[in-house]
Amino acid sequence: MKIDVLSLFPAMFEGVFGESILKKAQEKNAVRLNVIDFREFSPHKQKSVDDYPYGGGAGMVLKPEPVFEAIDAITDSNKDKPRVILMCPQGERFTQKKAEELSNEPHLVFICGHYEGYDERIREHLVTDEISIGDFVLTGGELGAMVAIDSIVRLLPEVLGNAESAAKDSFSSGLLEHPHYTRPAVYRGLEVPGVLTSGNHANIEEWRMKESLRRTWERRPDLLEEIDLNSRQKEWLQHFEKDQKNVD
Amino acid sequence: MKIDVLSLFPAMFEGVFGESILKKAQEKNAVRLNVIDFREFSPHKQKSVDDYPYGGGAGMVLKPEPVFEAIDAITDSNKDKPRVILMCPQGERFTQKKAEELSNEPHLVFICGHYEGYDERIREHLVTDEISIGDFVLTGGELGAMVAIDSIVRLLPEVLGNAESAAKDSFSSGLLEHPHYTRPAVYRGLEVPGVLTSGNHANIEEWRMKESLRRTWERRPDLLEEIDLNSRQKEWLQHFEKDQKNVD
Repeated sequence: MKIDVLSLFPAMFEGVFGESILKKAQEKNAVRLNVIDFREFSPHKQKSVDDYPYGGGAGMVLKPEPVFEAIDAITDSNKDKPRVILMCPQGERFTQKKAEELSNEPHLVFICGHYEGYDERIREHLVTDEISIGDFVLTGGELGAMVAIDSIVRLLPEVLGNAESAAKDSFSSGLLEHPHYTRPAVYRGLEVPGVLTSGNHANIEEWRMKESLRRTWERRPDLLEEIDLNSRQKEWLQHFEKDQKNVD
Repeated sequence: MKIDVLSLFPAMFEGVFGESILKKAQEKNAVRLNVIDFREFSPHKQKSVDDYPYGGGAGMVLKPEPVFEAIDAITDSNKDKPRVILMCPQGERFTQKKAEELSNEPHLVFICGHYEGYDERIREHLVTDEISIGDFVLTGGELGAMVAIDSIVRLLPEVLGNAESAAKDSFSSGLLEHPHYTRPAVYRGLEVPGVLTSGNHANIEEWRMKESLRRTWERRPDLLEEIDLNSRQKEWLQHFEKDQKNVD
């Protein structure tokens, strides 16, 4: 996979692209990451990339030329039709499903603006997807692009090692994870639950299933509606609800 | 404000903390950003920070000691009770409201794990807030912490310049922004809408209000339910709906 990022702050990406999974993925040639300072494609001597909005008003607007020209430069072959993704607060909410969809593409381009708006012609004639990572205000599209790229690249074949794959699997049961404990068994007077050090595997399994269900019920009850619960789980839920009433 | 980040990959933060708004905020002394490699606080010779889970199973679990000790080291005074934020997929969804709440705190600590689980005693006895930035799987908590920190720090007094402040204000009308255009008026045959170059300010204002409403109606109809629409806006909505039926 090839990923190009258009940004006015290319140095922002150095730390994240140079560490951990994204570093490994590049070393394994699973992905080529390339950050382009699209200021270089400004038609102006002063290399300006924004201008006042037509119709007046506060704020600046990213001009169409630098973005159109930068994308021309990275898609020189006619066959190459990359997905062009604009990071913006008005975009579709990014989800794991979107990450999976984009992980099947050969070429992605991310456009990151800062506080300016984008000239609408960029949206209408270049961009294939507009993505937002959440309902909060960020300084620019860079962090959103890094988030999307991390979640996409880790889905590529051979990128994850065994340890990370195992951890990933534990997310996909439809329930939240049960609590984890490791050594020491007592730390600052705080003890690990006795069942986990009992060696009784049936009890451990039951405790984990129950605590996983409890945590989901407490924090993300919406997830329970999407799962077929077995009779044991339904019984536990009734217990949780009864316990809560006794506390109230 | 003081922000400490506990991470096993401190170099990931260099680019983001050294550019744009976060750089400016530090130069203005609005925030002190400090990244701590909590591996340094491991009690072991080999500096290991994780261990096998009690009760068996795949994946490793972050040990309590390095995290407890690192937080002791950065909260040496008894008066200092920082908000301790764990980035994790099971946490509360991060929102602009949460960013505003946290921007009023004098001291924040972010704990970033990677693919391991956390020993539950960290959650129960150190952490005050568990935060998730969305329903997607990331390699670690670092990117989520950067997202949260960017959105929090830009709310601190005097951090944003005028240009960014103006852009920020335009997000908070309850509607999505109208399209923006800047020069050139014609680029690759693509024209700016005539009304914006007409000089008629009443028409421009009306066009913007209508397009802002249209975009919200198309992309985020949920936002319309939270706003008191005026009679003009209600009329426009009826037009949009009629136009859509004619297309269908």
